[in-house]
Parts: sequence; structure tokens; C-alpha cells
Amino acid sequence: MHEHTNPTAAVLVIGDEILSGRTQDTNINTIARFLTGRGIDLKEARIVPDDEDEIVAALNALRDRYDMVFTTGGIGPTHDDITADAVARAFGVPISHHPEAVKILRQLFADMGREETQARMRMARIPHGAELIPNPVSKAPGFHIGNVYVMAGVPKIMQAMLNELDEKLPRGRKVHARTIRADLPEGDLGDALSAIAKAHPHVAIGSYPFNEKGHFGTRIVLRSRDETALQKAAAQVRALVDDLTAKIPNPPVNWE
Amino acid sequence: MHEHTNPTAAVLVIGDEILSGRTQDTNINTIARFLTGRGIDLKEARIVPDDEDEIVAALNALRDRYDMVFTTGGIGPTHDDITADAVARAFGVPISHHPEAVKILRQLFADMGREETQARMRMARIPHGAELIPNPVSKAPGFHIGNVYVMAGVPKIMQAMLNELDEKLPRGRKVHARTIRADLPEGDLGDALSAIAKAHPHVAIGSYPFNEKGHFGTRIVLRSRDETALQKAAAQVRALVDDLTAKIPNPPVNWE
Repeated sequence: MHEHTNPTAAVLVIGDEILSGRTQDTNINTIARFLTGRGIDLKEARIVPDDEDEIVAALNALRDRYDMVFTTGGIGPTHDDITADAVARAFGVPISHHPEAVKILRQLFADMGREETQARMRMARIPHGAELIPNPVSKAPGFHIGNVYVMAGVPKIMQAMLNELDEKLPRGRKVHARTIRADLPEGDLGDALSAIAKAHPHVAIGSYPFNEKGHFGTRIVLRSRDETALQKAAAQVRALVDDLTAKIPNPPVNWE
Repeated sequence: MHEHTNPTAAVLVIGDEILSGRTQDTNINTIARFLTGRGIDLKEARIVPDDEDEIVAALNALRDRYDMVFTTGGIGPTHDDITADAVARAFGVPISHHPEAVKILRQLFADMGREETQARMRMARIPHGAELIPNPVSKAPGFHIGNVYVMAGVPKIMQAMLNELDEKLPRGRKVHARTIRADLPEGDLGDALSAIAKAHPHVAIGSYPFNEKGHFGTRIVLRSRDETALQKAAAQVRALVDDLTAKIPNPPVNWE
């Protein structure tokens, strides 16, 4: 990998309950913040249904294209948990009960006073060649194979698995960020902000409108791996905002 | 379209701020609930960065495959707002200032005491052949072209644009849903639930674990367009849950 390129990643969320609107996904955001904090660029996220063909197709598209793929959901003990099978098919490897996962689950079921049934032991089925990701919350492990990290869908468990991966994942140059608030609508900043963005090609500048008590405002977010370039661009944006705010009135408008 | 197939849809969220983790997306969930309520199947969602090539590629993949595509984000007045250009490129049509959009924005800027600048009028640039989607909140319109609906990223504005589309979109047969709570871990239900799912091919059965005060539990969600089939399957799940709950103890476990 070129020293100036950062590792790239994608997230694949698997779950009918997200696409039906029943559940609001929060895992993408959690993973995004985790990756941003370690200098890995999250380039894409997809949400697909509990359908093996769809999971396989999305997984193969994403793992070919990005350095890492993180999946969430579909690794529980019931019939709709098909992620492990889909991952095995995507990699063209067999799947069977992983001895270490069997051991973990046997202990869990013993502690819970449960018999070892076929359904319960489904969670020990792991594609060949995969390594387990420990689950300190509810025990049933995730796994990683090649550049794919397969995690639970329950946010608390997903977060715990992500923490387990912390030491194993690469780190890139961290992206630094500054946020500057302008008490002006986006349109007042457009031309000058565009000129600053063009003059600083290594700084990504985004602008996000908001409305507070009827007054339009804009949050300008500058992001860069180059702290010096970031500071220069931020100083120019700051000066622009101060200048425009002094010159242009910003009366409240009827934002319903 | 075959009378038994429902319209399908995809969501394309455009925005670096979602992929960096700075902002938690809520638009996918809002659109998902809107579509589910009218019998349109949301089949996929993607989040891509503010990058024209990426937007064009994702848009073309999704609009070829699904009956409708809903995009959010990137239609403001600043340099990082490139969605309209990307949509024009994806459809191979020119883009220029739309007379009706120009009129709306001129009125807005007059009301705000603002001059008409190039940056401000960027929001009137609309691909040829598109129709405007009114924006009752902050005026700058969205648009639709072919099977693609282009909406703002700010949730309040997106929701308002979605409401404006309500009369124009097709309706499918609504999916009915029942949720049954089991005070048992998922693994206790697995085998029997799988048998019920197999016996009711027109009912989708999902199971979602939770933990409450240390006790494992499972929410079983049944979904179907066929209300009679749904009621039959739900009655079987209800009986299964009652039977198992009476038989199997569910002591608290240490879910950290």
C-alpha cells in the first residue's frame, strides 16, 4: 500500500428489520466513528435483506473493492440467521462447527441450564479458514475471514466485537477535523467557500445547514490528514465567516 | 407489473458526513417506514461519499434494478452539493437553471433580503426532463426524473418532500405485521420457529434478541401481505412461546 493512501473500508448491514423501518440502524455510525478515529476511510455502506443471494453479491462487490468489509447482523441461532452461510458461499469455502466456538457455546448453555440442540449450536457454524471474534457480552462469537469481519447486529454486542478487533486492524493517518459555525444561510457562503476549497485540495470542506429559532445557520466542517493545511484553510474560513457575519443581516425566516 | 408483485425501491444516501460518522443518518429509516406503509418494498440502501463518479455508479446500478430510487443529500448551494450534476450525468441529459426553480428561489432571496448570486442560484440547476418536488420548509426544491426522486439531506426537509410525493407514488399491497414477545433466549425457539417458518412460505418470520434486566428475550416479528396466513402463523408462534415459557426457566444471565 502506498504510504499516502489510507486503508479503505465498507460496511454491510444485513437485516430485513432495517429495510422495513422497524429498526433504526446505529451500527453504521458506530463503525464509521471507530474507523475515522483510526485513520481508516469508510467509503461505502450498504443495507441488504436477509437473502443469501443478495448478501453474497454485496459481499463480493465490497470485498473486492475495499481493504476491509464489516458486516453486522444475521449470526444468531434462528432460521433467518444466514450470514455465516452466505460468507462461506462468497468465499467458496465449506462451513461447519468450529471446535472453539462449540466449546464456548457448550459452556454458555451449561451456565444457562440449556441442552445442546441443533438450533443453539447453529451459532458455532463458521466458514473454514475463519478466525473467531470474541463476544464478551453474550458469548456467541463473530468471525473474520480474509478481509471480511462478521459481527452481531445487536448494537451492544457489535460494539464489543469492534473493541476486540481494535488491536488487529491497521491504522492510517488520522483525519483531523474542525467545525466552524456561521450564523448565515449556506447560500451566503457558497462562492467564497468554493474558492477556499479549490485553493486547498488536501482539505475536504463540507457545509451543513441548520435552523435555530428561525435563523438559518451553517456548520462548515473541514477535514484533512494534513494538520498544517487544515489550520490554514480553517483560518480562511473563520475570517470569511467573521467578515460576512458583520456585513450581512440574518433575520429569522419562517422555517416551518 | 404482475399483480402479485409489489413495487420495489432503493435509497441512496449521499454524504461524507454520514460516512465519517459525524452525522447519524435517520433518513433511511424515515423512508423505509413511509414505503412499508404504502406496500412498497425497500430492497436495498446505500451510502456513498460526495464523489460524482461514486454517485453516478450507484444511481445507475440502483435505478436499473428497482422500480424507484430515493436519494437524500447534496442539493444545497455549496461546492460539495453535486447530486444534481451526478443525476444529469447518470441519465445522460443536460442540466441548467429550471425556470420554475429560479422563480421560487428569487422570491426566497427577495424575502431574505439577499442578492441573487451564482452560488445561491446553484440550487435552481435541475437536469432536463425532471419535475420539481416542492419544499414547503426551506423552499429550494428537490426533483424527480425517470424513476429517481432527489431529496434534501436535512431530515425535516426530506420528510416534507416525501409528504409531497405521497399522492404521486404507486401503492402495493400493504405488509401486515405482528410482533410476539418471548421471555426466552432465541436459541430456545430456533428449531420450532424454523418449522413454523417453513410451513408458512408467505409469512416472513424474523427473530430479534434483547436483554432486559439480565434476562434474555426474543421479539418475533411476522410479516405478510396475506392477513389470513399471518394470523395462522402468529397463532402457532404464540402457542409455541406460551408452551416453551411454561416449560423452560429463564434465569438472569450476566449480559455485561
